[in-house]
Amino acid sequence: MISVRPNVRAMAGYTPGEQINRPDVIKLNTNENPYPPSPRVFEAVRAALTPDRLRKYPQPLGDDFRKAAGQVLGIDPDGILVGNGSDDILTVLTRAFVPEGGLIVSPTPSYVLYKSLAEIQGGRFETVPFGADWRLPDDWPFPDADLTFLANPNSPSGTVVGAADVARLAGTLRGPLVLDEAYADFAEWNGLGLLSRVPNLIVTRSFSKAYSLAGVRFGFAVADPATVRELVKVKDSYNCDVLSLAAATAAIQDQGYFADVRAKILATRGRMRAELTELGFAVTPSQANFLWCRRAGRPVKPVYEALKERNILVRYMNYPGYGDGLRISVGTDAEIDRLLAELRRIG
Amino acid sequence: MISVRPNVRAMAGYTPGEQINRPDVIKLNTNENPYPPSPRVFEAVRAALTPDRLRKYPQPLGDDFRKAAGQVLGIDPDGILVGNGSDDILTVLTRAFVPEGGLIVSPTPSYVLYKSLAEIQGGRFETVPFGADWRLPDDWPFPDADLTFLANPNSPSGTVVGAADVARLAGTLRGPLVLDEAYADFAEWNGLGLLSRVPNLIVTRSFSKAYSLAGVRFGFAVADPATVRELVKVKDSYNCDVLSLAAATAAIQDQGYFADVRAKILATRGRMRAELTELGFAVTPSQANFLWCRRAGRPVKPVYEALKERNILVRYMNYPGYGDGLRISVGTDAEIDRLLAELRRIG
Repeated sequence: MISVRPNVRAMAGYTPGEQINRPDVIKLNTNENPYPPSPRVFEAVRAALTPDRLRKYPQPLGDDFRKAAGQVLGIDPDGILVGNGSDDILTVLTRAFVPEGGLIVSPTPSYVLYKSLAEIQGGRFETVPFGADWRLPDDWPFPDADLTFLANPNSPSGTVVGAADVARLAGTLRGPLVLDEAYADFAEWNGLGLLSRVPNLIVTRSFSKAYSLAGVRFGFAVADPATVRELVKVKDSYNCDVLSLAAATAAIQDQGYFADVRAKILATRGRMRAELTELGFAVTPSQANFLWCRRAGRPVKPVYEALKERNILVRYMNYPGYGDGLRISVGTDAEIDRLLAELRRIG
Repeated sequence: MISVRPNVRAMAGYTPGEQINRPDVIKLNTNENPYPPSPRVFEAVRAALTPDRLRKYPQPLGDDFRKAAGQVLGIDPDGILVGNGSDDILTVLTRAFVPEGGLIVSPTPSYVLYKSLAEIQGGRFETVPFGADWRLPDDWPFPDADLTFLANPNSPSGTVVGAADVARLAGTLRGPLVLDEAYADFAEWNGLGLLSRVPNLIVTRSFSKAYSLAGVRFGFAVADPATVRELVKVKDSYNCDVLSLAAATAAIQDQGYFADVRAKILATRGRMRAELTELGFAVTPSQANFLWCRRAGRPVKPVYEALKERNILVRYMNYPGYGDGLRISVGTDAEIDRLLAELRRIG
């Protein structure tokens, strides 16, 4: 075998949540949307499914999507970078800003991929513990980081840092602050409005959650157009394919459908939180499409395992120095009824 | 604007061939396949176009594709790494093997993306001029490169380095030799058979050319399974989407259709070469789906421009220290008839 770089050899690699495709399994472990994508997505993909569209290269910058998203979100299309999932965007940002030996920082507990991104790049990774109620500390210890990631809403907590605190953190940083808004579609506020007055802010979005397109791989970043022009040099030339571009464009244009799905998920989330609390879990108030459930004094790993035996997948997470919990995606009402019934049985 | 790394700021960025989607334009500039993908591709994508497949994450390693490709090519599925186009694979290889300040080498003239990959990674890039008849030099000057790319067939020439020379080059190298076989489906031999006896060889493939799926973005690498396990750590977790995986799996399983398309392109290539030679071009014998056309004493850039005015796009390429030429993709017979007629008119 040929030797890869020492930083790659040494790393464990990010382990994505278990992916299985069995109709008898209720999948509440990777925050997929339980509802189908907009009917317009299917129409758009079918329309793009022509010999000419498949055999020719797609738009390198996704111009049709940029135009549609710009209109819907009220932003400059030239400030949009399209990505093969928001993971692709996070990779491009890492490569654009972090040299070998450079520093990536994020609060903890948060999205564990950030550490893997640092390891692949041969960089260092530091975390800053969230304070009580998942607030950022007043003094941020790493102002010189090459890249700072803030998942907002955060995973696994589902909590949100407010606009004033985001702006304050960005103001203390020498490098960019990436607001990873994979779950912002379920939240009460998002960072797009901050972009014009916080120059080192970059917002990233995913179509895997609110738009029900995890299988299609699409995400985007919003930044100032000059920054996007630099990021374009780093991404693969044709990083988004013609079918995912068609799907994402149709999805973002159907804001009526989006609002309906969002409302259903928020309603189920509220009920789920109340009932899980009644079952003895400490459930963090969430602005995402999942709930972070802990239990003082009684381990939750057996609960995860018992649910798995009953064909219900949730995510067991354990953060060194912090402790463990279950991150449970908001499913359909029927799925959540089944989850709650099994939890009562497990006890 | 926030500052990207100096290596990114300094680079020009890879410029992909012009992409336009107009029925009145004959596109012979980016080596797309003029024939549609297999009918089975359309069936497979339609079958994958279900709410559940779109809303759930795809297979992280593309297991169904790996199994199908392993059977068709007679290789171990665990030795296959799936990619979002072969560009994604080349990026993953660069990140896995090349540290900042590391060295990437390729012969020249060749695929200019290799230089961009080095620049993004903050590495150095060196080229080795091809000898007469596009042969590799006997003494390879960079045995210590972190990564060596050999496009085989080469672009823009369409020429092929033979098995013995590939094995000999690999034997002189400390690091991996990546045989970029984007065009190998049109050639008389390929490197898969060398893999078992050349331990530092990695073969990459594209579905953009022979399989008519440039719009779908799919490629793969073949290496020993232990190397693939390391490369998996570097790629994005879900780098291939459910629709491109379905398309690629169906395409590689339809080897009858593939053979028909290949035969048509090879027949047109032969005729094209004879007629372009008659028109005064020096046309390199090609084992790819394009021809490299030069003209002694008379510049070819005006020809490129005149063709463009007549709605025929070919690729004008100019290599410092080497000179220029036109790289013309093999189109349908009707497209090539039109090309030849316009060239006669342009004179």
